[in-house]
Order: sequence, then structure tokens, then C-alpha cells
Amino acid sequence: MLFNNNIHLDSISSTNNFLLSLRKNNIFSEGLYVTTDFQENGKGQMNNSWESEKKNNLLISILIEPKISINNIFDINRLVCLSIFDLLKLYGINALIKWPNDIIINNRKIAGVLIENIFSNNIISHSIIGIGLNINQGKFLQYSPPATSMFLELINNFHTHQIKQQLLDIIEVRYKKLKIGYSDLNEYNNKLYLLEKSFRFMSNNKQFYGRIKTTLDNGTLVIYDESNGVEREFLNSELKYIF
Amino acid sequence: MLFNNNIHLDSISSTNNFLLSLRKNNIFSEGLYVTTDFQENGKGQMNNSWESEKKNNLLISILIEPKISINNIFDINRLVCLSIFDLLKLYGINALIKWPNDIIINNRKIAGVLIENIFSNNIISHSIIGIGLNINQGKFLQYSPPATSMFLELINNFHTHQIKQQLLDIIEVRYKKLKIGYSDLNEYNNKLYLLEKSFRFMSNNKQFYGRIKTTLDNGTLVIYDESNGVEREFLNSELKYIF
Repeated sequence: MLFNNNIHLDSISSTNNFLLSLRKNNIFSEGLYVTTDFQENGKGQMNNSWESEKKNNLLISILIEPKISINNIFDINRLVCLSIFDLLKLYGINALIKWPNDIIINNRKIAGVLIENIFSNNIISHSIIGIGLNINQGKFLQYSPPATSMFLELINNFHTHQIKQQLLDIIEVRYKKLKIGYSDLNEYNNKLYLLEKSFRFMSNNKQFYGRIKTTLDNGTLVIYDESNGVEREFLNSELKYIF
Repeated sequence: MLFNNNIHLDSISSTNNFLLSLRKNNIFSEGLYVTTDFQENGKGQMNNSWESEKKNNLLISILIEPKISINNIFDINRLVCLSIFDLLKLYGINALIKWPNDIIINNRKIAGVLIENIFSNNIISHSIIGIGLNINQGKFLQYSPPATSMFLELINNFHTHQIKQQLLDIIEVRYKKLKIGYSDLNEYNNKLYLLEKSFRFMSNNKQFYGRIKTTLDNGTLVIYDESNGVEREFLNSELKYIF
């Protein structure tokens, strides 16, 4: 097994930040992962907050050393999102991927991903993959989009430890495929949330209605802008979904 | 629960040394413990080696901050040895404590303890409690005394994870009692291996037959020397058992 070294903390402000803080330590190498029962001040991509009841959910940060070009930075994102998709599929849940890094079921968010990379000379030496997956939590504060959990979808409680192990196994398999050049771009595009549906987006403080067409290998999202009939391309931070 | 922060490593030369190496890190505080599936180069007290099959046994180092005087240094040793005794008792195994830091069943060693302390101004600020407990291992190399395991005693396999949790719970209870001044000296002395039995010891390269009488609060062992009828007192490194 690749993921054999684990740090489990009762409580920590951010598993990603904690993992990063070990950068100078000799355990900071591929296969180490950090879990916590409670994230005091969990962060999502772009400073969104992330709420989680103690021990009810999976909060994990995984360290890999992909050694790939920063041009392929989105490979890691696809790998992780598709791994969470695979995991939920194991439980009979059909999820979708809300580009770039949320996992959605029936318009509700069940998981979020935050990837932070260390690179030098255009090579990603380390990726810290933060995942928050709602497992047994039954109540959530108001979110946009609203939140859900495996419990709320299946009315069943789950062993977070077992789900963690399954997710790590799935990530390991996909990571090995990535390393031998397997492209999961089609897989990812087929699972896109809101694909070909008219939806309201915002970019540069201007709203527009558009339809998601696909993503490109580098992670760019292609949206057909219904207001002017033009296909527009977006990177992560340039686009908001307006729920 | 006190012991909530855990580092689990696939393989490490010594859990005690690894824990010590985290001394400058902010997770180095009471309640942290390190476990490993395999100790590459396990050490026992006084550079004795310690053999363990991968995943079959419990190899753990626990960090506490006792803040007690170095005059009470042996309190930690009693606490840990008696905790292992309690644990084995849960499983119906009646163990004895081979002063200063081995746990013995029928003249065979099932567990060893290695405690390393950090102190300043005569106060023990941190104790690193290393424990090796043989759980599911069925074969051992030649040892003196010979080794045994819970499996060999009960012909049953056990969940190391569950046993680890039970041991931590027991240690926590005893640690809380120690903090409020409970003395476990009598308990410890009642469970001494070879108590009042004639046995061969060695000190200063001279062998003698003697009978263990008791230990003192500071950990000193009192032996009645049969060759001259004198009670002699020994500290840890001054005495060897001759099997």
C-alpha cells in the first residue's frame, strides 16, 4: 500500500496546513496522510469555509510526489474528484463533479477537494490533496450549494475508518494509472455537473446564462455563453456558479 | 480521551526516537503517541534488541508531560508496567513484572518497556513511554528470557488496534490516579517476578544467589544476598538476572 504513514489529530485548524508544516521533517514524503476528527477552521478552495461535525466525516490530507509538469496540474484534480466519484459509486451513489473541485449529488455538495502544490522548475514535486467528505453528518448549516452526506442520501451510518481506507485504495489505483499515462479526461467530462444545462454563472462581476460544454486537459472549463453564442474558457478562479 | 493524536508509521527504526525527533514540532505535547507496524531496529532498555514480526505486535511510544520531580522518576515505570499487567488481566492472563521493565508470563517475556525522559531543573517535563507487547506473533528467535505472546498463551488471534486502545485507556486512568497522588507501590511489589524466590543475579561481574524482597518508592530493588545474609539495594543498570 502506498498510503501507510498516517498522522491522526484530534483537532487541527487545517489538515492541509498541518501537513505543509511538516515540510522539513523526514516523514514528509509520498504516502503520508493526515486525518482529523475535527477541523477547527476548515478551509475550502478559495477561502470558503467548511463545516464538519466531530468524527462524523472524513477530513484528510494526502501527500503525493507526482513529479509532473505544472502544465498537467489539473491531472491531480481529476484523479481526486474521480476517486471520490468511484467511492460513492461503491455505495450506489451516483455523484457528479462540479468543476473544478466539488462533488455533488442532486444539487447538494457531499465533498470538496483542496489541492495545494509545491513545485520547482515547473515540476510539481509535492501535492497536498485535501478532501472533506460528509459521511454521517445529518444536519448542516445553510450552504450554497446546500450540503448532503452519505447518511442523508442512504439513511445509514458508515464507518469513517473503512471509507477512508477504501478511498485511499481507489486513489492509489488511479494514481498508478496516471503515472503510466492513462488519460481520465473523458471520464471526468462525462461526469460534469450541469453539463449541457442552462445555468447562471458570474465572471468579472457580470452574470450570464451558459451551458457547460466540456473541460480541456489543462482544466480549463468551456462554457457556451447563451447571451452571445460564444464559447468561453475559464480557469478556476475566474468563474462563479450562481445558485 | 487523553491519547488522541496519533502518528502511525509503516516502518521506523524506533518509535521512541521518532517521537523524540518531533521535539521542536508543535504536535509534541501530552497525548501524542506513535505506533508502527514494524520496528526496523527496535531497542529495549540498555541496548537490548527487540524483534517483532510486521503488524503482529503492538509497538507504541506515548508522550506524556508528567511534570514531576526526577526523584519520582520510577512512578512512570510502575504506572506503565502495571497498565500492561491490567491489560493482560483483561484477557485472563496473569503476568508478573520483572523489575525494572519487563512483563513476564511463566518465565517468558511478553512485553518490554523503555522510558526516556526530558527534564530540566529536576522536573520531568516529558516522558516518552515505549512499549513493545507481543500479540499475535507465534515464533520467536532465541531470547533470554524466552519470549511469548498473547497468541502463544491463549491460542487466539487478537486485534492489535483494539488492544492498543484498551492499553491507552488503562494508562490514562492510572496516569490520572498518579496525578492525584495515588501510590501504586504495593500493587507493583505484589506483582514482582521472582519475589522471595532464590535466583542467580550478577552485579559488578560477580554472580550471587539472592531473593528479591521488594522495591522502594524510587525504584531501588532490594535483594537478600544468600551468600552473606545481607540485604542489598540495586538501581536499574547495576543488576543482571542470570537465566
